[in-house]
Amino acid sequence: MPTTTASPFAHLPEPPYYVVIFSSRRSEGDNGYGNMAETMARLASEQPGYLGVESVRDADGFGITNSYWADEESIRAWKAVVSHAAAQKFGRERWYEEYQVRVARVERAYGFAG
Amino acid sequence: MPTTTASPFAHLPEPPYYVVIFSSRRSEGDNGYGNMAETMARLASEQPGYLGVESVRDADGFGITNSYWADEESIRAWKAVVSHAAAQKFGRERWYEEYQVRVARVERAYGFAG
Repeated sequence: MPTTTASPFAHLPEPPYYVVIFSSRRSEGDNGYGNMAETMARLASEQPGYLGVESVRDADGFGITNSYWADEESIRAWKAVVSHAAAQKFGRERWYEEYQVRVARVERAYGFAG
Repeated sequence: MPTTTASPFAHLPEPPYYVVIFSSRRSEGDNGYGNMAETMARLASEQPGYLGVESVRDADGFGITNSYWADEESIRAWKAVVSHAAAQKFGRERWYEEYQVRVARVERAYGFAG
């Protein structure tokens, strides 16, 4: 596997904290998706309570983005930002065949790094 | 995007339920990983309290697997199965450069399907 300087892993504090799980399948074509995704990622990282993100998409267009937040209030504020930004204005239907959002409270965490 | 008969989305009940977020980066080479992953997926789906799974890995070997469970007891039982199975016996270090596990309680969910 290639070694990259930017780790795809989020560096998170001890639980509890929150996660927004965004599972999606992209529609055909870019249609401004790349720009929007970049803007959204930047806006998210500037939000109060933002802890980090992990994101993967496969060649079939199915992806999972887990974004981590300090508390529910941070998530509500972020949702309001998204609602007023281009992502919502042009309709997510433009970029996604389907998406599912689950909001969850992380209660414990552990890991391994070689 | 290709249309497949098997949807990558999990079909889940109304919250609350639990999610085990498994973020990982694969080591080089298969070394039995494919067989192990297949066996683990089958064993998970046979466990009491298993609700579903969503899983993606990119070309760089970074992946996210979110598995969904009815309650914490189901997760503990599943963890015991994993611990006694090959995945643990041979050491996850064989297959992963790094992994992080977060266990969370899903509190609300919504989505869109075109």
